[in-house]
Amino acid sequence: MVFFTTIRKNYSYMNIPKTNLPRVVIVGGGFAGISLARQLANKNIQVVLLDRHNYHTFQPLLYQVATGGLEPDSIAYPIRKVLKEIPNFHFRLAKVTDIEPENQIINADIGYLKYDYLVLATGSKTNFFGNKEMEKNAMVMKTVPQSLNLRSLILENFEQALLTSDINERNALMNFVIVGGGPTGVELAGALAEIKNGILPKDYPDLDIRQMQINLIQGSDRLLDAMCKKSSEKAEAFLEKLGVSIWKNLRVTNYDGYTATTNTGVTFETSTLVWAAGVMGNMPDGIDGEEIIGRSNRIRVNEYSQVVGYKNIFAIGDIALMETEAYPNGFPMMVQPAMQQGDALGKNIVRMVRNKEMVPFKFKYKGSMATVGRNKAVVDLPSFTFQGVFAWFVWMFIHLFYLIGARNRMVVFINWVYNYVRFDREARIIIRPYKKNKAIAEVE
Amino acid sequence: MVFFTTIRKNYSYMNIPKTNLPRVVIVGGGFAGISLARQLANKNIQVVLLDRHNYHTFQPLLYQVATGGLEPDSIAYPIRKVLKEIPNFHFRLAKVTDIEPENQIINADIGYLKYDYLVLATGSKTNFFGNKEMEKNAMVMKTVPQSLNLRSLILENFEQALLTSDINERNALMNFVIVGGGPTGVELAGALAEIKNGILPKDYPDLDIRQMQINLIQGSDRLLDAMCKKSSEKAEAFLEKLGVSIWKNLRVTNYDGYTATTNTGVTFETSTLVWAAGVMGNMPDGIDGEEIIGRSNRIRVNEYSQVVGYKNIFAIGDIALMETEAYPNGFPMMVQPAMQQGDALGKNIVRMVRNKEMVPFKFKYKGSMATVGRNKAVVDLPSFTFQGVFAWFVWMFIHLFYLIGARNRMVVFINWVYNYVRFDREARIIIRPYKKNKAIAEVE
Repeated sequence: MVFFTTIRKNYSYMNIPKTNLPRVVIVGGGFAGISLARQLANKNIQVVLLDRHNYHTFQPLLYQVATGGLEPDSIAYPIRKVLKEIPNFHFRLAKVTDIEPENQIINADIGYLKYDYLVLATGSKTNFFGNKEMEKNAMVMKTVPQSLNLRSLILENFEQALLTSDINERNALMNFVIVGGGPTGVELAGALAEIKNGILPKDYPDLDIRQMQINLIQGSDRLLDAMCKKSSEKAEAFLEKLGVSIWKNLRVTNYDGYTATTNTGVTFETSTLVWAAGVMGNMPDGIDGEEIIGRSNRIRVNEYSQVVGYKNIFAIGDIALMETEAYPNGFPMMVQPAMQQGDALGKNIVRMVRNKEMVPFKFKYKGSMATVGRNKAVVDLPSFTFQGVFAWFVWMFIHLFYLIGARNRMVVFINWVYNYVRFDREARIIIRPYKKNKAIAEVE
Repeated sequence: MVFFTTIRKNYSYMNIPKTNLPRVVIVGGGFAGISLARQLANKNIQVVLLDRHNYHTFQPLLYQVATGGLEPDSIAYPIRKVLKEIPNFHFRLAKVTDIEPENQIINADIGYLKYDYLVLATGSKTNFFGNKEMEKNAMVMKTVPQSLNLRSLILENFEQALLTSDINERNALMNFVIVGGGPTGVELAGALAEIKNGILPKDYPDLDIRQMQINLIQGSDRLLDAMCKKSSEKAEAFLEKLGVSIWKNLRVTNYDGYTATTNTGVTFETSTLVWAAGVMGNMPDGIDGEEIIGRSNRIRVNEYSQVVGYKNIFAIGDIALMETEAYPNGFPMMVQPAMQQGDALGKNIVRMVRNKEMVPFKFKYKGSMATVGRNKAVVDLPSFTFQGVFAWFVWMFIHLFYLIGARNRMVVFINWVYNYVRFDREARIIIRPYKKNKAIAEVE
């Protein structure tokens, strides 16, 4: 049989039908890409969306997957299903390798494709600021598989801690270091603390779970430093009440898999260091030049989301760096600008196709929030701020609202109610063991 | 740091506390092992359960995980949680390597352990009857990771089918061959047919899904040949109505990854062959001798579940071969005998410890069932048999009843209602790609 070895030559053009419609190719099925695609429905435009996963990920809840509170399918949604109502829509599971702007071609592992309009919505990835040893040894939490690896490692640590009579080893196995005091770090630390208090003592009666340490390390002088001071203080108080050790003005400089060193003399012996201290644009090849690539590896775009120097290449979401007066360093890399840019660009592409004038993008900040634990959240709205039980309900309501799919909402809601009433997290199962220092999961 | 390299020497005795209580070591947390452990609660017995997974798997629903209807955590349950109410209970995540009956020691990857009573409840694994090429190329569905691999492969096939213009390749990608017409094969074939009819045409409007073929191959002259004839006939009629091609009196002799050959001239070109045509005992090393190992690699036990020749080694569930007048070849390898043997042995061990006489095991057959699709199931009870909508409700009720955990029941129930009302299966996400012919999943 030869046909499986000759696949590639048949993959030209990715089998996307040729039509007379203008073709918009979107790279990335995150919040920006999905919002954009929806705007292009029924506008006589052919929409092609490429993503390396066949699902959209609701990243704000990844930390609950990592801590056994939710399963992946509750926060992941098949992209084909989200967008199946759009006529002339085509999804392809593909890893984009590079772009040839001069030929209006995009290359991927499954072939190449001509575009009329290209939109880069490739999002962001973890930024290790060039530290390769850190990159090799730290856990991250930007994708579903990464979050599942973290879940496996946490559980494996406790299984291993049970077995050793070496006190140093046991301490390192039960010591968790989270680097980065933004929403991700705060929410993960809070969830770990709740597991420590509610679940682990029952699961591991042979272990002295009080020895478990959760260290949250922040480089600046307060947690959640993008939020207001009151929210920061309250979040710190919540975390301290849960038993999290907060380290401020401290920067982790290296981690060899066992010892984390910092810019002061402080060190941490830990088998689990989670790096949540920075993100950077997820840049495809073929985009270069200092005038294009800006801060945090993001692509400089104008107020129409056009990549500097190109009329028909756009960037939206985390990958896009739109420098405005209010946000001279670009918008924060979060869901709101991504969705709003996707919506706005969709309307602008329709205008462009119809030879109408485009409208400049205006970002409308709606607020930000973080949850620490049961009944404990902080919410900043543009006009006021509140913390505590009500903030926690608001946080839950907003997250349920933005989840895609009625079934996902129901399942997440039931899990939350169950976890709340029973102080439980039932998805603490190790489906695929995570081999530390080996980026390979054995299949059984 | 050296402590991580010197772990092993600290693992002796697996850190199980020494007490004056008799120690029962159970290998395997399936239906048999869990039922047994529960019987030993509050009986002044130390119970140690070893399993290579930290969860109990509800195997009868694995096919729904493979076809995107359910997520793993709905049918998997942390063993520590199931058994946490038992005093003097210890779980260890361990792969048992061998047994030294002469020293009353069991060896595992994490150390060794002395036992007073040893119970083997290691279940069964897929039986390829020695065909190594089949084993390398066929998909199986006995564990959660295996079922997730099958899910990934099914979805990957359709993504790939979209890309090729080679008609032979496309046909092979859309051709599914299921070998084995028992409950597993029948249920998987039915679920695939429902996906074909309800979901794929919407997800892949560019593909002609009518070309998708589902072939169910049975060696004997009827499907579900352990059930009554009426149920067989009805199951076949249901499957045919759904569009499944049924092949009877046909045996697949080999599969090289592309072509399946049979004992007649018939061949199938397929990229997905699922082998559900046989199981065999999952035998630990250190058990040998013709008088002990019987049919299907099972361990011969007497009516007290004692392994032939040993007073304090027992075997229950699929691994045990208890030859009785009614079942000269042992009980069927299914849930009922496993649970009943676990219960009975638990009571007998308590009797043994208290120097009372043990009671011989009596198997009570309660019936068997299989579901083909929505409103389509077949149920055999000892006294009568029925098929269709009512059988389907009975099937669902029984499965919900035997699922462990209130949250699992709720989540499964909601998924079933949703899937029923919406003709949907939403967990069609490829979390870890399955690389065909490479038993390694890349971690991203």
